[in-house]
Order: sequence, then structure tokens, then C-alpha cells
Amino acid sequence: MSGSSVHIMLSNEYYKASSTSHFNCHYQRTIMLKLNSFTVTDEKTHPTQVMRRRATLSHKYELFYRDPLNPVQAQDAWITDASGRKYLDAYNNVVSVGHGNRRVIDAMTNQAKMICTHTRYVNDELCRLSERLTGKNEGNNEWRSIFTCSGSEANDLAMRVAMQFTGGNGFIVTDHAYHGLTALTQAITTSMTGYLELSNRLGLEIATIPSPVGKNEGNSFIDGLQTAINDMHSRGIRLAAGIFDSFFTSDGLGLTPKGFLDDAVRLLHDNGALYIADEVQPGFARSGSYFWGFQTHGADPDIITMGKPMGNGYPMAAIMFKALLDDYIMDSYFNTFGGNNVAVAVGHAVLDEIEERNLLENAHIQGEKILSELEQLKESCVNISSVRGSGMSIAVDVVTNDGAPNADGAIRIVEAMKQRGVIISTSGVSGNTLKIRPLLIYTNEDTNFLIDQAQSAVRTVFS
Amino acid sequence: MSGSSVHIMLSNEYYKASSTSHFNCHYQRTIMLKLNSFTVTDEKTHPTQVMRRRATLSHKYELFYRDPLNPVQAQDAWITDASGRKYLDAYNNVVSVGHGNRRVIDAMTNQAKMICTHTRYVNDELCRLSERLTGKNEGNNEWRSIFTCSGSEANDLAMRVAMQFTGGNGFIVTDHAYHGLTALTQAITTSMTGYLELSNRLGLEIATIPSPVGKNEGNSFIDGLQTAINDMHSRGIRLAAGIFDSFFTSDGLGLTPKGFLDDAVRLLHDNGALYIADEVQPGFARSGSYFWGFQTHGADPDIITMGKPMGNGYPMAAIMFKALLDDYIMDSYFNTFGGNNVAVAVGHAVLDEIEERNLLENAHIQGEKILSELEQLKESCVNISSVRGSGMSIAVDVVTNDGAPNADGAIRIVEAMKQRGVIISTSGVSGNTLKIRPLLIYTNEDTNFLIDQAQSAVRTVFS
Repeated sequence: MSGSSVHIMLSNEYYKASSTSHFNCHYQRTIMLKLNSFTVTDEKTHPTQVMRRRATLSHKYELFYRDPLNPVQAQDAWITDASGRKYLDAYNNVVSVGHGNRRVIDAMTNQAKMICTHTRYVNDELCRLSERLTGKNEGNNEWRSIFTCSGSEANDLAMRVAMQFTGGNGFIVTDHAYHGLTALTQAITTSMTGYLELSNRLGLEIATIPSPVGKNEGNSFIDGLQTAINDMHSRGIRLAAGIFDSFFTSDGLGLTPKGFLDDAVRLLHDNGALYIADEVQPGFARSGSYFWGFQTHGADPDIITMGKPMGNGYPMAAIMFKALLDDYIMDSYFNTFGGNNVAVAVGHAVLDEIEERNLLENAHIQGEKILSELEQLKESCVNISSVRGSGMSIAVDVVTNDGAPNADGAIRIVEAMKQRGVIISTSGVSGNTLKIRPLLIYTNEDTNFLIDQAQSAVRTVFS
Repeated sequence: MSGSSVHIMLSNEYYKASSTSHFNCHYQRTIMLKLNSFTVTDEKTHPTQVMRRRATLSHKYELFYRDPLNPVQAQDAWITDASGRKYLDAYNNVVSVGHGNRRVIDAMTNQAKMICTHTRYVNDELCRLSERLTGKNEGNNEWRSIFTCSGSEANDLAMRVAMQFTGGNGFIVTDHAYHGLTALTQAITTSMTGYLELSNRLGLEIATIPSPVGKNEGNSFIDGLQTAINDMHSRGIRLAAGIFDSFFTSDGLGLTPKGFLDDAVRLLHDNGALYIADEVQPGFARSGSYFWGFQTHGADPDIITMGKPMGNGYPMAAIMFKALLDDYIMDSYFNTFGGNNVAVAVGHAVLDEIEERNLLENAHIQGEKILSELEQLKESCVNISSVRGSGMSIAVDVVTNDGAPNADGAIRIVEAMKQRGVIISTSGVSGNTLKIRPLLIYTNEDTNFLIDQAQSAVRTVFS
């Protein structure tokens, strides 16, 4: 790098010139696949609101749908847009216990009226929340927790703990993973562009494994993991951790064979690496069988990170780790908002909802029904090649008549579902996987509506 | 680094052995100064609650006060503990518009009942909040914003934008700065241990300047900045940015001479570096003269980050930047909670409070009164060497009879203030600076109570 003085002219011209520099070229997009996200540039086809957005918000913000949604009200599983149109929410995995959940809102409001302060004062309810969360994981280990604002902050800290503990800088991830938006977590987020450049810059070594999303692809995942470990060792890289979403959600959902993640974790441990279970998406009963996703495999994580549904929309997240890792956190830890009294009250209310309304069981029952109906749909349609899921995490692969990944077909189904009043999206390395994530509180009517519209949408798109 | 296979025995023995490794020794504490924070280890002198904390929360969490506070209720500027004792809050800089602020709570509750979703759908109120915030900064530049959960996330992104734009990896910070808890921001947080090891590991080059906290120390700050820039250039390091809290809050408050920060920013720009204004602490009218801290100097930042008081306790933060920097954000940007509908409603309510209750003016009036009374106290006490401040950011240096920094004396004043029902803390590179941060909504009675107790505490400690 040159140390020469470069005067910054704060003008259009300088900035434009700079954007063509060699350095910037390294960061050009290598993946153009944008799934169901659009950066709006065509003034004629979009409402005033979108132009207002462009004038004041970063253009790196994206919108869902070519004709974006303008939701103004929501209750339980249903969203209403500004025109009064209603949509069944089968996408948003934050509001797991329902839009406008009254118990959660009351807990938030009542606590906010009492006091909202931080973790540098004693707070029994904070401890009790940590006890409830660590208690969700069986096993003989003592666990400790730290509360953060976001899953990104939790994963960022988890990565540093793994590096400190092992002395390593090698991370193993899948090839279409999402782990966060801080520098460190974006450096291992293989589903976005620039991660490799960023990881090089930050001194991380990343090995990627193909996503285990096909039937029993977990077996080849183990082979891929062994190859990655061998590769790291042969290059003299010390491993820090394997970090995987326990359901491989952003990869397109990888679930079988049952137990493969446990085998993977043993392999990591045998090779001096920790296992960080990214439970930001699969956690909090979404699986319909266990509270945490990794429990479906009987796997033994060293660090568990969580976020999205933890506060049903209130910004909160956490990291839990085996107590013996505590020494490897730098200096002290203080998070201004993480673990504040309102977050704690909300966290309890969400757990109360899951436990008292038997939402784990409901996720299982409704999820099984959706899965079996979609399986039947697959049998009758050559353009659906795979249906897989666990509880309220469901994936459907869309293919061409020749069986090739069909991202365009997937997008058309997403749009057809929107026309029919259901919100879903796409995911996966080829962008051809329908991402269906019903809320845990679905009623039989919600489930039937989703199934009916899915059948109708698929038949129309592929008629 | 060794690539040899290390089997992890998940037992006490392995972990203990590992903690003595060479690698870990690099991370031993180099700064032992813990200010007014304590890690509690003595079971006999502390209540059951503290032991419950230790059993389930990270031991890297710290508590304020040797006899920790157990607050259970708060309204306006007053906190009540479990025993019913009341304390005037002259420390917590998140709840700027008052504990239990009804307008903010109502905005939060009402919006939560309507809808709480994310930035991938259109939302006029999100745009309006961005417009209000960017409108607080005069100037001809077009600004754009991104909403995050925490100031850490905002600073983390700001650093990456600066690196992308300049192609540099050099950052200039002060020597007792706090900028966040993600890996990237902790690597420039010189007030905590391990930052140098972390910055080396992440490939960052850090130059530190002595904190400009004495009277007119801003002048030598400019000299220090020039030295740091020369040093970077001579080592062939390309500068990315100078990142400074505009009030140098964690350094102990550096404010004079007026305009010195503007000179510093010009120097940065002349040398190809951006200026990131960390307004997480000084922003939102705390200065009593301008909405942003940097405006007191007429400085021209390229990026502004904000957080703490932005939601009066609701977890929210943001980054604003000159529009031409937008191209240097990697890929797209999506933050699960940042900019959600409730955060937006809360953000408006906080701005409404500041504007409609004239809290900028109130911060000025009450702050000036506190400052002038503390100035008089200084004249009558050799152990107070300096009083400085702007609005509701106030610092008092405590010294020995010989004029040396007196961290122990500062702690004793903090404890004496607590006994008198006022919460303050300490800061600064020598730990001898009293950190007094009254809420913006102080009444005359609150101000008088603070002054009376400060006079009494100082006289008792130094009698």
C-alpha cells in the first residue's frame, strides 16, 4: 500500500474517480444472484415512497418484491398492507409467537414503565432468563451466557472466543451461509459477495463445505468436513471452529440423515476445533421437535448463539458457552442494551408463550401437515424436486422440466403466492429453493390457507 | 502456527492446561485499572443475587459499586432500589429524556400493537426519521443512513466503509477511547486491554494520540495528530480514518479550544483520511449547544455514528454518511432489527421530546449551573484540579494534595455520592476523572440536589 498523501476533495469527481481504483475492483460482485431482493431504480414503475427511500436511506438497502409491500398492521399470522389487503405471513422468522403478541407487548410495556437499565446493576430476572435458556440444553456442562443486541454481535463474540481458546484462525462454514453483518461475521458469510476478500484482510482462513441440503447429503457433508480439515492442516492453519446454522437455513435447509451434525461435531473436536451452533434461525422451538436445532442431531456444541425470535421483534440476542470458555473473552464485557430490563421481561414472555401454548408441539403438528401436503404436490409436479423440513422450517426445490435448478420459477411462485395473499421467499445456493417459515402460532385455518395457495400457485406457474 | 491435531477433551483439565498456553499469554491484561467496576468474588460480603449471577452469567460481566445497586423502579431522573432508597441519576446517558418517559413508552407500545417488521418493506416513517436525523446536520452534502441495533454495529460498518473508500487500514484514535464491542471496534478501543493484539491480528494499524482533556489540550492534540499521520506515512501505511468521540467522553472529556476538532478534520482530509464522528455519547443534544457534539467545533465529518440515547433505552443506533460513500458498503445491507417499525416510532418520540420540551436549552441552562458551582468548589479544594463540560457532559479531575492523579479519591467520591443518593462514575486514562452525566430533563431541584451532594461528598472525602 502506498503511504503517499492523498487529498480528499469532497466532491463528486473525486469519489467517482476513486471508485475505479484497483482496490475497489477486488470488491466487485462475484455473485449476482439477488434472490427475491431488488434495488429499485426505475422511477416510473414504483410509488413515491420508494423514491423517498432512495433520497435518504442507503441504496444498499433492498426491498422484497418487484412491487414492494407496504404493511401497516399485523396480528397473529396475518399482515395488512396500506390498501387493506391481507397476507398470511409464512416468511418472517422473528415474530415466531405472532404479530402483535399481547403477552409480549404487555411485558415490554409494563417493564418499560418500571425501569429499563443495564447489566452493571444486579437484576434477578436477568439471571432467571439465563437459567431458563441454559436449562433448555441438557448435558452435564455448566453454561454461562452474555446478552447482546443482535445475532451478529453474538456470532462476532463467539468467533473471537474460539480464536482465543484454540489459538487458531481457521473457520469452516458452508458455501451459502449467513452469520451476520459485523466485519468478522460477514467475513464468513459465504452467501454474500466479498467475504473472501474481507476474511483475507482480517487474517481469517475460511474453508467452505458444500451445503448438505439434498436428501441424506449430511453424509457427504462429513466427507467435505474431513477434506476441509485436511486442507487446513496441510496448509499449517490451526482451526478455531466450525460454525454452522444447525438447520443450514440460508443454505436451503439441510436436515438428514438424523445425527450427521453430531458426527461433524465429533470430527471438529477430534481436530482441536470448537463447534459454534448458530441457532439464530433454527432455535426457539422452530424445529417442532426440540428447542434448539442441534438437539435434533444430539450434537454437543461448545457455543450457542441465538437471536431473531428471542424477543419476537424486540432487538435482543445472546451467546451461551461452556463455562470453561469464559476465560477467553477479552477484558470485561458490557453491552449497553444487551440484557436490559425490558429485553429480559420480553425474553421471559416469549419463553412463556412457547411453553404455555405448547408451540413446540404446534410447530410439529402444523409443520407435518404442511410437509405432507407439499410432498403430495411434489408427486404431481415435475417442477418440484424436493420437499424437506422440520416443524416450521420448510424448503421446496423448484426445477426446470429437465430437473435443473430453476431460480426464475421459484421467484414466480413467490410472486404468485403474494398475489394469493401469502408471503414466502427464496434461498439456497442456486436461488431455486422456496423458503417457507410459518409462524409457530399457526392455526389449522392458517395451515390450510397456506397449503391451498401453494397448490394453486405451483399449478398456475407450471401449467 | 501449528497445524497438528489437538484433541479437545471437554473437561476441566484440558481447558485449564490450555489457559496457560503461549498464545493466551499474549492476551494477559496490560491495564489493571478497572475504574468503578468490580468482578465480585467474595461470597461473604455480597448478597445471594450476586452469587446467582456468577452461576449463570459470564464472569466477564462487571458490577458498579463494591456494594452493588439493585434498582427496581425509576421515573424521570430518579432511580429507586429494592430497599426503597432513591438515587438521582447523574450517570446513565441512555435514558436522556428521562426514565419511564411516557411519550416514548406510548410510542413503543402503540407501534408494537400495530406492526413491527423490517426494512425490506416500505415504511414512510423510517424515511422520515432518516430525514429528521440527517437534517440535524447543516451543510451542502447529501447524507444517507442505515439503522442498526447498537453503536458498535454502526462503528463497525463505519470503519469498513472508510477502509473500502480509502484502500487504507490505518486508524487514528485517542489513547483512552471506547468505540464498541465487535472485533473491529474493540480493536480500536484503547481504554480496554488487548486492543493492540486484536488490531494486529485483524490487520489494522492503529496510531494513538494523547487524549485532549486538559484546558486547551486540543492544541497539542493537533500536534499529536500530525505526528501520528507522519508516523503512518513513514511506515507506508495508508490511512483509513480518524475516529473520535467528538467530546472525547471516555478519555475524560476534551472540549477546548473551540474549533480544534475542525482543524483536526481538515488535517485528516488533507492526508486522505476520513473523519468518523462517534456521536454515540455526545450526540442527541447532550452538549447543550448543538444536537451533535462535532457541531460545537464546526467540524465536517464524513460519517456520523449514533446510539445510546437514540431510543432512550430501546436498542437502536444508526450510521449516517455522505452519499458518495454509499458505493463502498459491501454487497447489500440488511439488519434484522435495525430500523424496525417500533425503533422508528421510538426514535421519533425521542426527537419530539428533545424538540418540544426544549431539552437542548435545558441541558445548557442546568449544565451551566452545575459547571459554575463545581468551578467554585474547585476554587475551595486543592483536590479538584479541573472542572470542564458542555451541557450535560461534565468532568471533574481529582488529584492528591501534590496535584497527582488520584483515582482512589475519585472512587471515594463516587461512593460518597452514592451514600448521598446520587449516581455518578469515573473515567479517563488515569481513572481520576469524575464522570457526571445528568439527564437532559433535570429540573432545578434535581440540579440543586446534585450540586449540594457533590459539595458535601467532596468536603467529606477531603476533610
